[in-house]
Amino acid sequence: MSDAASILKSLTDKARQASRSLARADEVTRNLALTAAAAALRENSEAIVAANQQDLATLSADRTAAFQDRLTLTAERVEAMAKGLEDVARLPDPLGRILAEWERPNGLLFRRVAVPLGVIGMIYESRPNVGADAAALCIKSGNAVILRGGGESLNSARAIHAAMVSGLEQAGLDPACVQILPSADRALVGALLQAADGVDLIIPRGGKSLVERVQREARVPVLAHADGLNHTYVHASADSEMARRVLLDAKMRRTGICGATETLLIDRAIAPSLLPLIVDDLAAKGCTFRADEAARAIVPSLPAASEADFDTEWLDSILSIAVVDGVEEALEHIAHHGSAHTEAIIAEDPETAAVFLNGTDSAVVLWNASTQFCDGGEFGFGAEIGIATGRMHARGPVGLEQLTCYRYEVRGNGQVRG
Amino acid sequence: MSDAASILKSLTDKARQASRSLARADEVTRNLALTAAAAALRENSEAIVAANQQDLATLSADRTAAFQDRLTLTAERVEAMAKGLEDVARLPDPLGRILAEWERPNGLLFRRVAVPLGVIGMIYESRPNVGADAAALCIKSGNAVILRGGGESLNSARAIHAAMVSGLEQAGLDPACVQILPSADRALVGALLQAADGVDLIIPRGGKSLVERVQREARVPVLAHADGLNHTYVHASADSEMARRVLLDAKMRRTGICGATETLLIDRAIAPSLLPLIVDDLAAKGCTFRADEAARAIVPSLPAASEADFDTEWLDSILSIAVVDGVEEALEHIAHHGSAHTEAIIAEDPETAAVFLNGTDSAVVLWNASTQFCDGGEFGFGAEIGIATGRMHARGPVGLEQLTCYRYEVRGNGQVRG
Repeated sequence: MSDAASILKSLTDKARQASRSLARADEVTRNLALTAAAAALRENSEAIVAANQQDLATLSADRTAAFQDRLTLTAERVEAMAKGLEDVARLPDPLGRILAEWERPNGLLFRRVAVPLGVIGMIYESRPNVGADAAALCIKSGNAVILRGGGESLNSARAIHAAMVSGLEQAGLDPACVQILPSADRALVGALLQAADGVDLIIPRGGKSLVERVQREARVPVLAHADGLNHTYVHASADSEMARRVLLDAKMRRTGICGATETLLIDRAIAPSLLPLIVDDLAAKGCTFRADEAARAIVPSLPAASEADFDTEWLDSILSIAVVDGVEEALEHIAHHGSAHTEAIIAEDPETAAVFLNGTDSAVVLWNASTQFCDGGEFGFGAEIGIATGRMHARGPVGLEQLTCYRYEVRGNGQVRG
Repeated sequence: MSDAASILKSLTDKARQASRSLARADEVTRNLALTAAAAALRENSEAIVAANQQDLATLSADRTAAFQDRLTLTAERVEAMAKGLEDVARLPDPLGRILAEWERPNGLLFRRVAVPLGVIGMIYESRPNVGADAAALCIKSGNAVILRGGGESLNSARAIHAAMVSGLEQAGLDPACVQILPSADRALVGALLQAADGVDLIIPRGGKSLVERVQREARVPVLAHADGLNHTYVHASADSEMARRVLLDAKMRRTGICGATETLLIDRAIAPSLLPLIVDDLAAKGCTFRADEAARAIVPSLPAASEADFDTEWLDSILSIAVVDGVEEALEHIAHHGSAHTEAIIAEDPETAAVFLNGTDSAVVLWNASTQFCDGGEFGFGAEIGIATGRMHARGPVGLEQLTCYRYEVRGNGQVRG
């Protein structure tokens, strides 16, 4: 066993043991750990900001201002982290929910009961608060977590981790419920991704290159999305005003989030009247375009799209536009170019909407609403640890419920199978 | 790309496309494919048995009689396969179930709706009927499947596959909903296990070495259990007659199935009176034993257990026995030696039972019933494709519901996030 593997094994052994006691801890105890950790964050706010200053002082000069801002902690940001922990404490308990219950003719009573997943590996990039948020969601859902933040934020991560440990200890819980990798050594990340016996789930949170590395190397199951190449399809029956309002939000509210619309598909029947208005609305907000020939025939000033443009997640003020002949052609375009994340249809005709909702592989499909609603908070989950586009276990925003699995509890009075 | 990878890519591309149309097919159409396939099995019964005879004729002489029996198809076994398809057709539709539904203050209506997983790879060993059963469960749950049976049953598998394709075609469905690997080349299995883009889930069904190879090599998520090292714990409050009856069934009803009990844990307080009776009951049915020192102090004729015996899934008429001091020591033993499959407690005291039910990592926990109830049929699932012990997605018997995931359907009237 390599050094990294052996260091990791000692972490995962401790995490497994901690996860077993945490899974049996009652809701009050888990919530106490969160509120006590929030208090510890507040008490140690100055020390956390000082640790963060150390990280910032050694930051490589070629990092962008945006990166530096994401890395920076202030007293206000520490307070927001503390409040976040208290918010998670107030959410309903995801454990012990009876997901199904039935009786068999032989008198056996079956219950499917929500239980934690076990041990989670959380790999994130620059924003140090992600460590506190993720730890809170894991504690609340009864999972032990091993955190690995960005190499640039190690001092910040350690200071935040100390507050989480203080919360766990005050609640009488095993401090190994929340651990961090002991150094920024990349071999440790590799070992974490390979630890199929010790870790039940990896959640990467960060840029596409991080997520793709994790998906490529991991032998542990991964919940993540690499791309959010989302489509909004405007059907011929659409209310034009609604289509314009929704498109403006779906594309331009925030262009850098995974729920942003990247491609507009618009029906040939409605495009001549509506497309020029949509383009004007968006252009007025600074959006630029990549359009297919049919769209350019209607609005000749639009730049021409290459085929590759329809495979591009812009995460920017750019919209790809294609004209389609009806819902089936829209669905074919999405099957060919989409990333199974989020799609929307704008339509007044309910039959067409039903065909669309049932016709994609995507985790989230919306009818007459902005794709930017793909967010755990907007779903009412209270908090999310990420968004998943895989087909196994959980899809869409990953909140507390999605951090659980289930067991079957079977009650009898001496039944034998015979 | 290797030859195997390129052959596999053409299979998975076809499977993905087929899965999309199958996911949109209504229940009547999917059921028609199953009943038409059943009819095709019956019509071609002689040809299927003849193909099976070819497989048997070329079978290596060193194969056991049990292996040969599992491989053999008769007219009766073909009829049983056909009936199995009709049984699956009669099960409730797992697709389109509304798993949750809620409204947000902004008027958005959220629905979590059951959808197929996508493309499933099914790897099984000698019994050719597993191919028909698995294909039926996949068609019913809207999933395309790629089958890989044992190399010894290739002719049988092809004949069965032809009947499934006939059923799909009669229902107007894409025949690529059910495909088989074109040869017994093991490189194709390797390519299937690596096809993370083309395959959503691998289900291995067979012996431990098959399952372990799949779990080791797969980059696609796997639903499986490698071990069923199950415990029955007899608490001091147990009804002695019930304990004896349940133990006899749990150990001896069928010793070779994954739900069999392998280790008896018995409370020190009740062991002196009860253990000799349990040992006599089981010995009378041919069971032998591996017992710890405390058990041997009560029944001196018991052979001594090594530590490794408690880590052994016997799948045979052998029972490991350990005396424990109460439920917490029983749970510690299970945490240390168990395989997270199935555990049972025999107890009259409900508080102790509750501690036990909530205290293991296992997929199935029973109170006052035999571990041999860990079976999709006994759960009321109608049919199962396997049993899972992982913590992600599904645990315990894997039936139609477990072959689905979900998407979110969100209905609005023009909401923007703003």
